Amino acid sequence: MQLTLANIRNVVEDLGPTNVEIELVINGLALRAFQDDSSHVPLLDDLKGKGVTFKACRRSLKKCDLDESKLLSHFKFVSSGVSELIKKQNEGWAYIHP
Amino acid sequence: MQLTLANIRNVVEDLGPTNVEIELVINGLALRAFQDDSSHVPLLDDLKGKGVTFKACRRSLKKCDLDESKLLSHFKFVSSGVSELIKKQNEGWAYIHP
Amino acid sequence: MQLTLANIRNVVEDLGPTNVEIELVINGLALRAFQDDSSHVPLLDDLKGKGVTFKACRRSLKKCDLDESKLLSHFKFVSSGVSELIKKQNEGWAYIHP
Repeated sequence: MQLTLANIRNVVEDLGPTNVEIELVINGLALRAFQDDSSHVPLLDDLKGKGVTFKACRRSLKKCDLDESKLLSHFKFVSSGVSELIKKQNEGWAYIHP
Repeated sequence: MQLTLANIRNVVEDLGPTNVEIELVINGLALRAFQDDSSHVPLLDDLKGKGVTFKACRRSLKKCDLDESKLLSHFKFVSSGVSELIKKQNEGWAYIHP
Repeated sequence: MQLTLANIRNVVEDLGPTNVEIELVINGLALRAFQDDSSHVPLLDDLKGKGVTFKACRRSLKKCDLDESKLLSHFKFVSSGVSELIKKQNEGWAYIHP
């Protein structure tokens, strides 16, 4: 996850924050890494400041028995992470698998 | 593979079977999981009933020394799995890497 | 990496070298596999002859402390591998994650 976040920062730096719009969609067990006590907070703060959006899959949260309130405030919620990836590509967004 | 199939079922449920068309393209050693005695049959049955299509890479079957007749009847065959992924994206399909 | 290169060769064979244009974008530690003494040279030679392009991420090289001059001559350089993947998709290229 650290590598994925670093890659996102690199892309934002490379293209310039005003030239690229990035959403990180997270589903599955990976969501556990973004609870209140997450060590990723500084990097998430930095990326959010640069316009990156974070989305969490509600179905995965349910499956992980994680309450939305436990997740870092950086996250918005989507009903399904994979559906979100499909919708975004249909809107013309590029897709990168970490 | 179980996770991939479950993810597909989730997307179909989330968007509704009449609102999304899904193809699962399988190549490489993963095809071994879909022989006659596969434990995935109930889930494949369910997904097929919801309109999901399953495609197997003929090149991979050859490389795995697997005969087409050994594969579950749920599968159609394409000459190359990766070529199929390229063609579909060129037709406007979204791509999800499991 | 051997599998990825073999998959590319399969696609070129399947679709025909004049019908498909393929770029392999490499970032991260994977670049280490393409230094001067790489065992992948014969396959890279073959693929280059069939029109495949190889691109290396400069940011990753820096991070791996690898000098561009150490990389096989098959490679061109891009400032960021992930940015390249985004740009290409925006130009209509399909994306395959190995």
